[in-house]
Amino acid sequence: MLNFDFYNPTRILFGQQRIADIDKHIAKSAKVLVLYGGGSVKATGTLQEVLTALGERTVLQFGGIEPNPSYETLMGAVEIVKQQNIDFLLAVGGGSVIDGTKFVAAASVYQGDARDILKTRGGVIKHALPMGAVLTLSATGSEMNNGGVVTQKDTHTKSAFFSQHTFPQFAVLDPTKTYTLPARQLANGVVDAFVHITEQYLTYPVNAPVQDRFAEGLLLTLIELGQQAVHNPTDYDLRANLMWVATLALNGLIGAGVPQDWSTHMIGHELTALYNIDHARTLAIVLPAMLTVRQDAKRDKLLQYAQRVWQITEGDEQQRITLAISKTKDFFNGLGVDTQLSAYDLNESHIDTIIQQLSAHKMVALGEKREVTPEVSRQVLMLCL
Amino acid sequence: MLNFDFYNPTRILFGQQRIADIDKHIAKSAKVLVLYGGGSVKATGTLQEVLTALGERTVLQFGGIEPNPSYETLMGAVEIVKQQNIDFLLAVGGGSVIDGTKFVAAASVYQGDARDILKTRGGVIKHALPMGAVLTLSATGSEMNNGGVVTQKDTHTKSAFFSQHTFPQFAVLDPTKTYTLPARQLANGVVDAFVHITEQYLTYPVNAPVQDRFAEGLLLTLIELGQQAVHNPTDYDLRANLMWVATLALNGLIGAGVPQDWSTHMIGHELTALYNIDHARTLAIVLPAMLTVRQDAKRDKLLQYAQRVWQITEGDEQQRITLAISKTKDFFNGLGVDTQLSAYDLNESHIDTIIQQLSAHKMVALGEKREVTPEVSRQVLMLCL
Repeated sequence: MLNFDFYNPTRILFGQQRIADIDKHIAKSAKVLVLYGGGSVKATGTLQEVLTALGERTVLQFGGIEPNPSYETLMGAVEIVKQQNIDFLLAVGGGSVIDGTKFVAAASVYQGDARDILKTRGGVIKHALPMGAVLTLSATGSEMNNGGVVTQKDTHTKSAFFSQHTFPQFAVLDPTKTYTLPARQLANGVVDAFVHITEQYLTYPVNAPVQDRFAEGLLLTLIELGQQAVHNPTDYDLRANLMWVATLALNGLIGAGVPQDWSTHMIGHELTALYNIDHARTLAIVLPAMLTVRQDAKRDKLLQYAQRVWQITEGDEQQRITLAISKTKDFFNGLGVDTQLSAYDLNESHIDTIIQQLSAHKMVALGEKREVTPEVSRQVLMLCL
Repeated sequence: MLNFDFYNPTRILFGQQRIADIDKHIAKSAKVLVLYGGGSVKATGTLQEVLTALGERTVLQFGGIEPNPSYETLMGAVEIVKQQNIDFLLAVGGGSVIDGTKFVAAASVYQGDARDILKTRGGVIKHALPMGAVLTLSATGSEMNNGGVVTQKDTHTKSAFFSQHTFPQFAVLDPTKTYTLPARQLANGVVDAFVHITEQYLTYPVNAPVQDRFAEGLLLTLIELGQQAVHNPTDYDLRANLMWVATLALNGLIGAGVPQDWSTHMIGHELTALYNIDHARTLAIVLPAMLTVRQDAKRDKLLQYAQRVWQITEGDEQQRITLAISKTKDFFNGLGVDTQLSAYDLNESHIDTIIQQLSAHKMVALGEKREVTPEVSRQVLMLCL
């Protein structure tokens, strides 16, 4: 096992009817800005439930945070925070709203150009406003971690940032709040959580059996429940288990003490920034190709994955690895998520642009062994066509 | 899945050579009391390493915290804290030292009789001194949770307490610090962690597949590594994995959203308080008997345990359950831990006293369904002879 630090102070309030409990975890005197995305939190009544829970506190609202939240939009919220002396931020939504709120929390108290936060991957963050989250979509894990991803529209750049100051103080995880989500978003959530796990699991062995078992447990649960959860919108247990898996997939636990990859995410970010493909769908395209191209470096873990996650025990090593990758792809397809660039009208002619963007963003030595060069990324993208 | 709160702000500093890092996590101006047990932390050099890391801070020491730390001893530390205006406590040791330090942290600032903390199971704790831990023995999980157990010698009473104010702020987990432990203590640690897991796993199903998979992953790892870890004192990975398992076995994660039992612990506490049997050894005695007596209430989970943890697939349900319990017992015995009261010179004549103590301590409706009455406890103890 590798040396590691693990720190995660976010308080999880899990279950039905938990929104009212936010009252216990925000100062009575706080001046709160509630941040959300489109109109769905209004239509479903979740926003009103939050406002009721906040009681007599002074509350302002900031709506319109888009999927893949943009620097440009978020700076509008930063302006309000500064002008109105807001001292608590409450995100109501999915990963984009929570990521965006983390950025606002840091940018509102940063002395200087807020783009520094993105340029330094959060390194300049020395403090941030306190924040909480009410989750309405299981996918990114942002509700219980300290990271976010923000897009600068002008340069088609998606930038990740991290800081120990940007953990939500609490997160309400009420599975019933996901009942009204469209199947497409649910399927995206399953894929997003799945690939968060593989980025931390499918690398190389460092004798960390607990991390392996936990990652496998999460993957097995997603495989068992994924399709059912997408198609049974009001089955509480399915939604609850999916929600808890997605949170645990990226709260730091399964990645503590093991190597991590993240090259699939980095290439996926370019696809979203350039062509506006849903984040999860970019992962479903890139992951199978990445595993295929890098199977020698990942051989031991791929064989373990084949056996423990897909119960593949027949065939030689090459056959087992190929079958495991193929089953991964089938799983994504079975959720209604395409796994080829052609499904998004992209072809070989677009690859140069993607590679150029990777280079422009210094994504030239990716993966757990830093061996995903632009040339390897090109091989991967060719397999995605 | 049941509704739950999960909150665990302890920062884990895991790996070799991490003691020096405590310097970053204690205020430079802090007046520190270092608490420890017997002389082993002196003999091994760990205490000196801690003192070096604390640098120029004012540091006092309090040694002599015994296994199953006593109220009487700990009140001596409380006296020092008050007289010397100590403002940070640093536990250096195993579960007993860390549990005791939590009690000191709360009792030092409690206005009233410190026994109230034990009588109310921590309910009266409204604040506590900040504390950290340097772990030297993997077993109890106290390094990353908010609970402790303290013995009042005068009444032979072991009392558990919990408070959100008694989490260690940080815990250093350096596996090399366990190299010098005697095999007996290591074996105890494996059993203790094992039974912490079964108390949260072997109850009844509530459709919580992730919690099940995590618990099974921890049990499988203990079974794979337990004996090896006991007999290979300087194998880093074995000790590291054992350490991380024991921490995760009782940090709140696998018990979140599921029923919990803890009747084996409550009966075990009486055995320790009356007859001074090592805590883990009392668990090894009681657990197999408890599972046998309560197998109807635990049927579904016992069958899952048989299949997933012990790979038992042959035989009818009764045979599989019986074999799983028998393998559990064999596992403890294989570690050199006895599983019968007779090994400690106890016989049927002692059972009345144990039952009387359970009743005196109001332990009359134990377990996940509150159905472990004194009569059921008697049946269990008869099977332990």
